[in-house]
Amino acid sequence: MNTGPARGMRDFLPEDVRRRQYVIDVIADVYQKYGFEPLETPAVENLETLQGKYGEEGDRLIFKILKRGEGAETGQADLALRYDLTVPLARVVAEYRGKLPRFFKRYQIQPVWRADRPQKGRFREFYQCDVDAIGSTSMAVEAELLSAAADVFVKLGFEDFQIAINHRKLLNAVLAQAGVPAELHGVALVIMDKADKIGVDGVRKELGEKGLSAAIADTLLQQLSGSPPADLAQWMTEQSTRLNHDGQTGIEDLRQIFALCQSTSAGAHLVLDRSLARGLSYYTGPIFEIRVADLAGSLGGGGRYDNLIGMFSGEAIPASGISLGLERILVVMGERGMFPAAVVSTPADVMVVQWFANRTDLYLAFANELRQAGVRVELYPDAPSEDGKKIGDRQFKYASARGIPFVAVIGGDELANNTVTVKNMKTGQQVTVPRSDVRSTFVEQS
Amino acid sequence: MNTGPARGMRDFLPEDVRRRQYVIDVIADVYQKYGFEPLETPAVENLETLQGKYGEEGDRLIFKILKRGEGAETGQADLALRYDLTVPLARVVAEYRGKLPRFFKRYQIQPVWRADRPQKGRFREFYQCDVDAIGSTSMAVEAELLSAAADVFVKLGFEDFQIAINHRKLLNAVLAQAGVPAELHGVALVIMDKADKIGVDGVRKELGEKGLSAAIADTLLQQLSGSPPADLAQWMTEQSTRLNHDGQTGIEDLRQIFALCQSTSAGAHLVLDRSLARGLSYYTGPIFEIRVADLAGSLGGGGRYDNLIGMFSGEAIPASGISLGLERILVVMGERGMFPAAVVSTPADVMVVQWFANRTDLYLAFANELRQAGVRVELYPDAPSEDGKKIGDRQFKYASARGIPFVAVIGGDELANNTVTVKNMKTGQQVTVPRSDVRSTFVEQS
Repeated sequence: MNTGPARGMRDFLPEDVRRRQYVIDVIADVYQKYGFEPLETPAVENLETLQGKYGEEGDRLIFKILKRGEGAETGQADLALRYDLTVPLARVVAEYRGKLPRFFKRYQIQPVWRADRPQKGRFREFYQCDVDAIGSTSMAVEAELLSAAADVFVKLGFEDFQIAINHRKLLNAVLAQAGVPAELHGVALVIMDKADKIGVDGVRKELGEKGLSAAIADTLLQQLSGSPPADLAQWMTEQSTRLNHDGQTGIEDLRQIFALCQSTSAGAHLVLDRSLARGLSYYTGPIFEIRVADLAGSLGGGGRYDNLIGMFSGEAIPASGISLGLERILVVMGERGMFPAAVVSTPADVMVVQWFANRTDLYLAFANELRQAGVRVELYPDAPSEDGKKIGDRQFKYASARGIPFVAVIGGDELANNTVTVKNMKTGQQVTVPRSDVRSTFVEQS
Repeated sequence: MNTGPARGMRDFLPEDVRRRQYVIDVIADVYQKYGFEPLETPAVENLETLQGKYGEEGDRLIFKILKRGEGAETGQADLALRYDLTVPLARVVAEYRGKLPRFFKRYQIQPVWRADRPQKGRFREFYQCDVDAIGSTSMAVEAELLSAAADVFVKLGFEDFQIAINHRKLLNAVLAQAGVPAELHGVALVIMDKADKIGVDGVRKELGEKGLSAAIADTLLQQLSGSPPADLAQWMTEQSTRLNHDGQTGIEDLRQIFALCQSTSAGAHLVLDRSLARGLSYYTGPIFEIRVADLAGSLGGGGRYDNLIGMFSGEAIPASGISLGLERILVVMGERGMFPAAVVSTPADVMVVQWFANRTDLYLAFANELRQAGVRVELYPDAPSEDGKKIGDRQFKYASARGIPFVAVIGGDELANNTVTVKNMKTGQQVTVPRSDVRSTFVEQS
């Protein structure tokens, strides 16, 4: 009988859960500091809520749930598993308009399911970690989103991350200026987006196939790639004079974001990336991506999308957000060994040995004293069949195998003197202290 | 267009999530103190893993997921949504036998899905909160499970809960002694279990229909109901002499649990309930249930089930566990108003007003100072189109509507003097303090 998880799904054993929870807690805590509030939506949505929202490819990847009861025999589906966190957010904004604040800042950290072909690092159940601010067009929103994201990465111990930023209106203006007709903006950006993969010749060839001349290709290669301008302020002024109104708006937004981020932890990491396009479908303003050198792909990304959230309510509702790549963050932190020892470590701070054959009452009471004082205590569950050292040794081995750093023993001497002997399992050192002092003993040593 | 959640499913808006998270955190924290470790399994399991494990009725209530790709047209299912946390635990124990400790103590707090008819308080997606200790037959396990459960309820602010306890072997012995044939133990217990609903006459009638005499009915009514024995120790001794070996084992286990719990917070709440039967299928030893007076049904329950966990590995693996009823705990706490103010409250500790038309940089930097100091700060996102009081009033109203307790203003005087004016939104009191002192000001007031 197959006892593994279903294809593309994962079981998270205790150490996995602790690592995941650690990162989730850091993210949630930082975003709460910025006034973002938690939202949770059900794993199961009406199929009609999801269908048609993710394109043809997306529709194919939705897990569909069979009708029950009367409809069960038809083989039809009426429900589906959550595919992302954006469509549910749009639904929630439409449904609870009166109950939600005008500026609704929410974070949502929940799993989504996609019937993708599983590969290394790609799963069918994975967490998304979305942070969105709804209802304001102010660039203060973007500055706060990036500032908070930077705080998250700094708190997690990243020092070398880069926040690449660009602007959809700036991209559009550059394309227009270069002579790309509006209806080809999308395909041209897709081609430019892979310039680093296909090279200059590839870009020329593919643009040519779309009927765009070599001159246009060269202009785009010059304008939408290369390292950031040496003098950003001067570059912005130049662009403002040569680009159309869209371009000027884009530049002005970027100017504000750079200025506002200066006093935040995002400032030192923020870099203009003229080639950044980030998909195409729904972004309308600033777009951003968070990267580290040792990971192809990004650790997070997002942007402003002023026309999407109203999809269910039929109004235009401005919004901007960022999605942090929880699974990728975990991979990089794992590879780099970035988890604090306390997170990867053990199920308990100390294990209480059962030395006497028939005194579980004594050991449970002692364990509970420590627990009430905030210590995580494992009580060895099986009382030995006879008193003494031999039994104790087996329990010591058990604690050692589990990586529990301290073991506490109350044997004959200790019971008589109201003391406890504490053994440091790493150093082998033992100390005997009054029972009332025991907590400070091993807390200080750890 | 329907923007509500699917039938029987719920959206959790921020205040809901905060309440749920508060309870989950208390539960997880307490169980961690007892050395229990977190486990998470995927929402989606292979259909064959679940099917046939929950009886005919259970099988009907499993949400089944349509095949994708080649099988999509057949209308067949190959996957299903998690129905409980016990079958996945049994699967995990079989799959990772070599990686898991011999005594595996795990808690698992995740949603499950059942295609039940939705009713008041019954949902199709709800959280289970299971705590199980696997691999030991010691009654220390039961004592720790109950001690931890009692700690949870005490920490949540419950004072009046009762932990009812009984033993399956004791029940079996009483039934045997009364003359109920072994094959009727199950049905007899189901009938006795509803004695308080159907009354003495109902019990006689229903037992009679199963061929059990009025004399048997009267014996069972006397033995399996009524308030707890006045002298528990004496009652236990009496039972031990008159019951069979099973009954003696049950009494001895209960005696140990009562003794071990004495020094724990469970002790004061533990009560023998001779009528407690708790389902029938898989319990083999002590069984327990946690109750409060103002809730029909229980806040949690569990017991020992030594034959279930091995269902996938084919070995007998002893286990005992308790499942806390998260959704019910939330209902009772909500009705009683038991959530601390900090939990139900607001998205932020303070809102920073944007007073000047064009100084978002100033306000963002100030907000970030506070955030770095651990304060949850909402920055009003839209800069006003002109400086001053009128705009400020609108922002004050916004803070008030959102229930944010303090508002911080840096206007002209404050900017000149490097001060901040903080208004307590409840009392209306205002104080102006040096910018470096502002945190202590409103933290002290709150």
